[in-house]
Amino acid sequence: MIIIMRNGAPQDQVTAVIDRVSQLGFKPHISPGEERTIIGVIGDERRLDESTFDLMEGVERVVRVLKPFKLASRDFHPEDTVITVNGARIGDQPVVVIGGPCSVESREQVFEAAEIVKANGGMIFRGGAFKPRTSPYSFRGMGDKGLELLAQIKSSLGLAIITEVMSPEQVPMVAGVADILQVGTRNMQNYALLDAVGRSARPVMLKRGMMSTIEELLMSAEYIMSNGNEQVILCERGIRTFETTTRNTLDVSAVPVLKELTHLPVFMDPSHASGRARYVNALSRASVAAGADGLLIEMHPHPEMALSDGAQSVSPDVYTQTIADLRRVAEAVGRSL
Amino acid sequence: MIIIMRNGAPQDQVTAVIDRVSQLGFKPHISPGEERTIIGVIGDERRLDESTFDLMEGVERVVRVLKPFKLASRDFHPEDTVITVNGARIGDQPVVVIGGPCSVESREQVFEAAEIVKANGGMIFRGGAFKPRTSPYSFRGMGDKGLELLAQIKSSLGLAIITEVMSPEQVPMVAGVADILQVGTRNMQNYALLDAVGRSARPVMLKRGMMSTIEELLMSAEYIMSNGNEQVILCERGIRTFETTTRNTLDVSAVPVLKELTHLPVFMDPSHASGRARYVNALSRASVAAGADGLLIEMHPHPEMALSDGAQSVSPDVYTQTIADLRRVAEAVGRSL
Amino acid sequence: MIIIMRNGAPQDQVTAVIDRVSQLGFKPHISPGEERTIIGVIGDERRLDESTFDLMEGVERVVRVLKPFKLASRDFHPEDTVITVNGARIGDQPVVVIGGPCSVESREQVFEAAEIVKANGGMIFRGGAFKPRTSPYSFRGMGDKGLELLAQIKSSLGLAIITEVMSPEQVPMVAGVADILQVGTRNMQNYALLDAVGRSARPVMLKRGMMSTIEELLMSAEYIMSNGNEQVILCERGIRTFETTTRNTLDVSAVPVLKELTHLPVFMDPSHASGRARYVNALSRASVAAGADGLLIEMHPHPEMALSDGAQSVSPDVYTQTIADLRRVAEAVGRSL
Amino acid sequence: MIIIMRNGAPQDQVTAVIDRVSQLGFKPHISPGEERTIIGVIGDERRLDESTFDLMEGVERVVRVLKPFKLASRDFHPEDTVITVNGARIGDQPVVVIGGPCSVESREQVFEAAEIVKANGGMIFRGGAFKPRTSPYSFRGMGDKGLELLAQIKSSLGLAIITEVMSPEQVPMVAGVADILQVGTRNMQNYALLDAVGRSARPVMLKRGMMSTIEELLMSAEYIMSNGNEQVILCERGIRTFETTTRNTLDVSAVPVLKELTHLPVFMDPSHASGRARYVNALSRASVAAGADGLLIEMHPHPEMALSDGAQSVSPDVYTQTIADLRRVAEAVGRSL
Repeated sequence: MIIIMRNGAPQDQVTAVIDRVSQLGFKPHISPGEERTIIGVIGDERRLDESTFDLMEGVERVVRVLKPFKLASRDFHPEDTVITVNGARIGDQPVVVIGGPCSVESREQVFEAAEIVKANGGMIFRGGAFKPRTSPYSFRGMGDKGLELLAQIKSSLGLAIITEVMSPEQVPMVAGVADILQVGTRNMQNYALLDAVGRSARPVMLKRGMMSTIEELLMSAEYIMSNGNEQVILCERGIRTFETTTRNTLDVSAVPVLKELTHLPVFMDPSHASGRARYVNALSRASVAAGADGLLIEMHPHPEMALSDGAQSVSPDVYTQTIADLRRVAEAVGRSL
Repeated sequence: MIIIMRNGAPQDQVTAVIDRVSQLGFKPHISPGEERTIIGVIGDERRLDESTFDLMEGVERVVRVLKPFKLASRDFHPEDTVITVNGARIGDQPVVVIGGPCSVESREQVFEAAEIVKANGGMIFRGGAFKPRTSPYSFRGMGDKGLELLAQIKSSLGLAIITEVMSPEQVPMVAGVADILQVGTRNMQNYALLDAVGRSARPVMLKRGMMSTIEELLMSAEYIMSNGNEQVILCERGIRTFETTTRNTLDVSAVPVLKELTHLPVFMDPSHASGRARYVNALSRASVAAGADGLLIEMHPHPEMALSDGAQSVSPDVYTQTIADLRRVAEAVGRSL
Repeated sequence: MIIIMRNGAPQDQVTAVIDRVSQLGFKPHISPGEERTIIGVIGDERRLDESTFDLMEGVERVVRVLKPFKLASRDFHPEDTVITVNGARIGDQPVVVIGGPCSVESREQVFEAAEIVKANGGMIFRGGAFKPRTSPYSFRGMGDKGLELLAQIKSSLGLAIITEVMSPEQVPMVAGVADILQVGTRNMQNYALLDAVGRSARPVMLKRGMMSTIEELLMSAEYIMSNGNEQVILCERGIRTFETTTRNTLDVSAVPVLKELTHLPVFMDPSHASGRARYVNALSRASVAAGADGLLIEMHPHPEMALSDGAQSVSPDVYTQTIADLRRVAEAVGRSL
Repeated sequence: MIIIMRNGAPQDQVTAVIDRVSQLGFKPHISPGEERTIIGVIGDERRLDESTFDLMEGVERVVRVLKPFKLASRDFHPEDTVITVNGARIGDQPVVVIGGPCSVESREQVFEAAEIVKANGGMIFRGGAFKPRTSPYSFRGMGDKGLELLAQIKSSLGLAIITEVMSPEQVPMVAGVADILQVGTRNMQNYALLDAVGRSARPVMLKRGMMSTIEELLMSAEYIMSNGNEQVILCERGIRTFETTTRNTLDVSAVPVLKELTHLPVFMDPSHASGRARYVNALSRASVAAGADGLLIEMHPHPEMALSDGAQSVSPDVYTQTIADLRRVAEAVGRSL
């Protein structure tokens, strides 16, 4: 941590800061500047809050030097983390595509979707039983019954299951069926939930908050990991910006940035990002070309009949075409699919 | 709901949309435009999802006509809601200031702070026992012991208590002490929590997500209200923008906008919005001048010793000065404090 | 400037950076950290680009210590700048309200508006002759004829004039009539224009770009000032955010932030910020309460007939009421109007 | 245009709106809704301002039906526009990469860079002679001398030139050398400049404002085209968001969105978007995979010596590698390079 004093801060203010640094068990290091004195704080700054110094008299600004996450950081864990689910090696050379509908709506719908995923070489199936919805009047998912249908998919078709968990008390029940627990975008900073999935033995797909920074995403991963669960998959799903032609803006730069900062696998969700089925193919190609380890793609056997998020679900035909297109792009960047 | 067809959409696509509208139990109303056909959907559109039509062939855009919230809407409840807590009439003519530290840290700290709040005419005291923190390594509050200290403040000093609740299972315990349950900014769309506080008998202070629109804030209020609890206080606390001189950007326009859209009381939190104690006085004045019903102000007896958010906590002296300044501004806009 | 080296950067990379600092005529100052080496650069960093070091091998991050503006900075000019225009002392104790229509549309319209401004004690009148419009098909102002009407207002009614200038070659002509040259939000970083108004003898009202930071606003002021014109008035007019109930979000925090960073007067434009006449009164009150030196308010004698921006123009009655309301708020914060 | 009346708006307000529609020469079309009356406005709404109706009594909201641009719209010009420059067919099957340094700094630097571009199959060279810089104290380009060096590149190496033009009066001089005139991000809504390049015979590369929507970008293209110059190339270069690990956020979705809305060629600038040379390769691959017609890539023979934007300039080696990588991705999506 570096403390920048104001222009002309008197010596007693400088001394007070230096004393505080020492009291807290850190070593101060003073650099006299032409216009401002700068005080370095030597020691593990993760234990420190900026505000400890920020509002002392004479302090202009406090700058962190270290990244605030450790378990998630590539500095401390240089090799890529690979998470194996049903034979799919997430974070390894092959790109992993997870498909399925937004919500589980009926036995027929979910089996039809799962067959298409399987036919396209998929090993993991997505579908929501518990759905976070902006309106209390919207369809909020089939709940337990939806979970049971997912269990049937698993046993009948041999697909692994990823589904969302919305509260700490749901974790054991959902983990009874799901091979991967999904934490949704609105819950990225629901710390009670992060602690709960952190105590589970299941891998966790952590979706980036739609207005959360990459650093905050990594801090939320750190919550899960600090509870003992190191199997975390990160998923960029679009951030909120001023642009309105797409529902959110897919932050494709998050792929190279995350690959640099962390060893965890990085997924992309072009369906939620764009909110429009017709852009999903292009954004999927872009994601794989940028280096993503996998994709979450919403597909519905009959999108126009979907009870939620139909507008962003591709049809089976488009899904099949997208998988074929992605295979070529994956090969162009030295991967397979 | 209005469905705008694409330029030159053939008649069979128009007919398909019209048929769908009828099938769903709504009445279609066709307006032929010069370049585009427009189809009105007559009926209670709150039951409908945009995406129902959005991805039918030939549809360009779907526009909602009605606001998606009802219980929170001034259309359906024209008079202001007034919530009485410990004699403070929230939402009525007097502006209500709630003060106190970010976190409960010790008996001494919290009593010292509470005395200052009381001396300045305050009737409600804030303090966090359970703290959502971006880093798992930061101080996360005293928990149950903090709650107990708040109970002591209540019985000794006669102040009402507002404190944050972070998960559904905490609700009964927190509601045992708190007069107002606070739902924090990161939990504004934690629907399990909204349902839980909606089933409580305590008034709820719902803080706007730092990344949430005003409409989403009202939809979250609607969640709480649709569970039976109509005592909801809304609180703007700064939104995330590109500007970095303040931690977030206080959306002061939210005051007149919310007063127009809803009957619920509107609070402002200049401390979290700015993240800087030195801007709190100016932003508090602006909030009251804009018509806010109340303020949440962080005050710490010794801000530089605070375990969390010290940088945004005002000192007792600044707090006292701010209350005096606000009294004059409140009177200038026809209110008292 | 502070250069933070990567964790474990080898000594030769550190040495290369140190050598570069010296070569450029600055003094390096090395602080060994626990995990990272930090190199201070002593000297006037305004002459340096972050990127000079940013991409040297082993460098993790470069942090500026000094603010990049100097003439606009309160550090170098502690007293408030006061700009006198037609007897109005802008930046001094009284709050200055500038009213008038978005566009000059006709002799009748502009005189009617000016009479109302004058009757409410105004000394400066606003009106656009050259209008920046998003669409090439919208009304783009009366041009020279509009300027002539403004000259007539000036000579007949004794009001000073502020009007927008859109390109360098217009500056002499507009400065022949206008007492204050306005640089619009879309031109805040039109450097050719900033240079041109910087060479004029007229005060300049510089509007903040709708997606520009406060620091960028001050850098644009610095452009004007570095050309010799130190009479710059800053104007916050709403920034672009994700919120859609208002056209832009009025950044009321900009008032205390700018008053701290700069000696230049700070205005607010609640009309463009909100885009809605019905919010102008509340936002004007908030602005004055926050400490703004003045306001730009759009008023049209018949808003519903306006050729541009009618939706944000208040009627004469609302204007008169707003001035009365602002007088009380100004007094409550120790100022007059 | 559709006018939505407020809930319970009395008949005389509805009538007043209908009358206004007729007076303005449009045909009103009334749809009675369950809660709100809706009035359609039939005719060419491009001639209308929302605010014409927005502030009439009883009006809740006004919704545009038509896109406000026409010449730029694919509706009116379904085939892709192809612009041929020095044999490069921009907007056609092959992806066109334009490389070169941010600024022209010296004869040696610019020739060295140009040779590398040529060796990699490039036909167009970029380099700035006039540079928009946030600080008046930064290097602002070599000006006329820079332009002359670009003219030498052109005659010696047979490369076409693209360079930025910053004000209307520079257009003739810059167009004397440049094969493509670049309008920079800060000038996207500098209407005097758009009009000036619209009257030039040179193709124009219009960079999206970092704070501008896709619709605004198309409206700015419409300005240029409505002046007679239909050779406009659009360029996405990153938008401003809350994320800070990259300088701006590359809006990769803009590619499929623009290809749908307009017939104009779409470029991407990963260098300015990310501000970091190390992310340029990944973002270039993503852009081509998403369907971009071309790329602007900053390359400097010695990035660490660059006078501007060195941090985002790739080295010759990385440039050569990137071109090779892009060739494979282009082929994977059915194009060449």
